[in-house]
Amino acid sequence: MNTNAPMGPAHTPEQLADAAMQRFYAVIPAGGTGTRLWPLSRAAAPKFLHDLTGSGSTLLRATYDRLEPLSGSRVLVVTGEAHREAVCRQLPEIPDADLVLESEPKDSAAAIGLAAAILHARDPDIIMGSFAADQVISPDAVFQDAVREAILTAATGKIVTIGITPTHASTGFGYIRMGRPLDVAGAPSAHAVVEFVEKPSEDVAQEYLASGGYSWNAGMFVAPVSLMLKHLKQNEPELFRGIDEIARAWDTPAQHEVTARVWPTLPKIAIDYAVAEPAADAGDVAVIPGNFSWDDVGDFAAIGRLNSASEVENVTVLGEGARVFTESASGVVVSDTKRVIALIGIEDVVIVDTADALLVTTKAHAQRVKSAVDRLKASGDTDVL
Amino acid sequence: MNTNAPMGPAHTPEQLADAAMQRFYAVIPAGGTGTRLWPLSRAAAPKFLHDLTGSGSTLLRATYDRLEPLSGSRVLVVTGEAHREAVCRQLPEIPDADLVLESEPKDSAAAIGLAAAILHARDPDIIMGSFAADQVISPDAVFQDAVREAILTAATGKIVTIGITPTHASTGFGYIRMGRPLDVAGAPSAHAVVEFVEKPSEDVAQEYLASGGYSWNAGMFVAPVSLMLKHLKQNEPELFRGIDEIARAWDTPAQHEVTARVWPTLPKIAIDYAVAEPAADAGDVAVIPGNFSWDDVGDFAAIGRLNSASEVENVTVLGEGARVFTESASGVVVSDTKRVIALIGIEDVVIVDTADALLVTTKAHAQRVKSAVDRLKASGDTDVL
Repeated sequence: MNTNAPMGPAHTPEQLADAAMQRFYAVIPAGGTGTRLWPLSRAAAPKFLHDLTGSGSTLLRATYDRLEPLSGSRVLVVTGEAHREAVCRQLPEIPDADLVLESEPKDSAAAIGLAAAILHARDPDIIMGSFAADQVISPDAVFQDAVREAILTAATGKIVTIGITPTHASTGFGYIRMGRPLDVAGAPSAHAVVEFVEKPSEDVAQEYLASGGYSWNAGMFVAPVSLMLKHLKQNEPELFRGIDEIARAWDTPAQHEVTARVWPTLPKIAIDYAVAEPAADAGDVAVIPGNFSWDDVGDFAAIGRLNSASEVENVTVLGEGARVFTESASGVVVSDTKRVIALIGIEDVVIVDTADALLVTTKAHAQRVKSAVDRLKASGDTDVL
Repeated sequence: MNTNAPMGPAHTPEQLADAAMQRFYAVIPAGGTGTRLWPLSRAAAPKFLHDLTGSGSTLLRATYDRLEPLSGSRVLVVTGEAHREAVCRQLPEIPDADLVLESEPKDSAAAIGLAAAILHARDPDIIMGSFAADQVISPDAVFQDAVREAILTAATGKIVTIGITPTHASTGFGYIRMGRPLDVAGAPSAHAVVEFVEKPSEDVAQEYLASGGYSWNAGMFVAPVSLMLKHLKQNEPELFRGIDEIARAWDTPAQHEVTARVWPTLPKIAIDYAVAEPAADAGDVAVIPGNFSWDDVGDFAAIGRLNSASEVENVTVLGEGARVFTESASGVVVSDTKRVIALIGIEDVVIVDTADALLVTTKAHAQRVKSAVDRLKASGDTDVL
C-alpha cells in the first residue's frame, strides 16, 4: 500500500495536492427512511428522494451536485434495492457498477465498509469521502473547500471527519473534541481528533459550545480506503471478511450470487463504533471544522427553517401543488397533494398532507413523530409507513 | 276557511284533538350549504346529507323519522334541484308531488310559502309544520309531544313556534319573548308570543336566561296554511302572488313551465320577517317551549359535543373509514376519507379531512370557518366549495 506517497513524479505542493485530489472518490450512502419526517418520508419514499428545501432538487441530487466538482464522475451510491429506480431517475449518470444495492439495511459500517472494499479492489490508493444523501449544506463552495482540505489531510494517512462548527448548544448531535493543529500543506484548519463524544446533556452542550474546542459530528468521513479497511479489519473482523468477499466478486460474474449470500449475514453496526472511535483512540483521526451551514433535516421544524422564503402569511408552505389558505395561523405545511388546505386560528402548527396519511402536530412536538410511527407500526397500519 | 272548527261531527276534547292531528302535514325545508361546516358540508353535499351525530342516519333522514309518527306519509320536502337524487336516496318514500325543487335558493319565506300554497291548494284546512332538515333533536318523544301541543294550538287559529328552553346565555340565536299562558285543551304549555328578538349581546342574553321568559328561536313553525298565507299576502304581496301562481299550477301539466318562469323572480326574504314577526305584532303567534335537547350543529365544536361517545383518547372521531392515531392530543376529527390521521401534541384541534380539502382549526376558532370559505370563494377556488 502506498497511501502517503503521491503517484508519479510530483514534488511541488501544488503537484502533491493535485495528486491527492486525483485519488478522490465520493461515496453517497442513501439509506434510512427518515421516520421523523413521516408521512412525507417513509420506507417507499425516504427523505433523500424529496426536495425538502424548495430548491427544485431532491436532497440526493443536491448531494451529488455538491460533490461532482471535486469527484467528477467518480461517485458510488449505496442504497436499498427498493430505491434503485428512483435513485437512477435522480442520478442517471451513475453506472450500474457504482450503484451498490442493499437487499436489507445493515447500518453504516457495512454500507461504507463495502464501498471502501469495492474501491480498494479497483485501486488501493483511492481516498474515499462518504457523505449522507439527506443533508442540506450551504454554500457549496465553503463545503468544497473543507472537503479539499480533508482530502489533502487524508493523503497524509488520516481518517478525516468534517465537523460542523456549533451554532447552538444542541443536545441532538454527537460532538468531536479537537486536539492540536496538524501541519498539513493546503489544509490549514486540520486538527487532530482527541475523541468522539455522544449526544450531551444541555449543560455539557453549553460547555462544549463555550469552549470552542468541539464540532458537531455530521458523519462525514474522508479517508484512504486502505486505512478505513485496516481499522474495520481490526475492530470488526467478521464484518470485514464479509465485505471483503463481496468486494472480490464485484465487477465479476459472481457479484450477484456472492452479494445475495453474504450481505444478509453481516453484523449491524454504526461506522462510528466500527471505525471512527477506535481510530481516534489510535490517533489516526483528524477533523476539518466546517464553517458552512448544515442541517440534517431532523424534523418538520427544520423544514420550516429551511424554507422561510415561500410563506403564505406566517405559514411556510412546501409542495408544488399546495393550495394553502390561512387566517391567523402560523407554522409549516408540507403538501404532497393538490388539496385545498385551510388553517384558521392555529399557531406553530405542522401539517404534512400526503395521499394516504395526514400528520397534524406542532413545531414543539415535531420530534415525537418517530414514536407515533412506532405506534402505527405496532397497530399493523404498515401500509402508510 | 275553516281553521277553528273541527272537521265532521267531533265534540269531545279527544275527538277535537284527533281531528286537528288529521289536518297535519310536515314540511321539511332542506336548504343551505352549511358553510360553517366546510369542507365536510358544501354546495354539493350540504349539512343535511351528512350523519353528523354518528347515529347511522343523515340529519335529513332523522328529521323525517322524527316527524313520521305525527304526519304519516304526509311530508313535503323543499330542496335544491342539485340535491334531488341525494334526497330521493335518503327519502325513497317521498312521491314526486311532495318534492319541491328550487332552481335557485330564494330564502325561507319563498320555500315555506310555496309549501303552504301547494298544501292550501290541496286542502285549505291543512295545518303545516315546518322543521329544518339540519337540526339534531333528542329525545324524539319529547319533541313529538311539543309538536302535538303546537298542532292543537295552531288549530285554534295561531301560528305556533316551538321554542327551545335556553341552556346558556347564547348570543348566536334569536329569542322569543313569551306572554300569557293560552288556555288550549291538550296544549298546557302554550303561551302567547309578545315578540321575536334578534341575537342579543352577552349581557342581554344573560338577562333573558335569568328571567325565564324567553326561548331560543329554532325556526320551527306550525300553523294553518290559510293563516300563513294570509300574513304572507299582507306583508309580501309580490312574493305571495308568485307562490300562489306556482301553487295553482302544481299537480297540473303546467307545473314545470310556471315554476321555471316564476320562481327566479321571487324576492329573497326570511320567513321571520315575512310572517313570524308581523304575525306576532298582530297577536297571532303562540309558542310551545320545547324541553328536548336541540342543536343546529352550527360548527365543528357542536360535532364534538354531539359525538362524545366515539372517542380515541381525548379526540372525538367522526367518519366510518377514519383511522386516527393520537398522542397527547384532544379535539375533533371529521374524516370523509380512509387516510391515516396522526395527531401529536395538539390540543382542542378541529380537523376535517375530505378528498379535496382539509381544514385545520381549533374549537375556539370553529365559528370563523365561514369567513375562510368566503376568502376561498373570492380567490376563485370554488371547486372545493
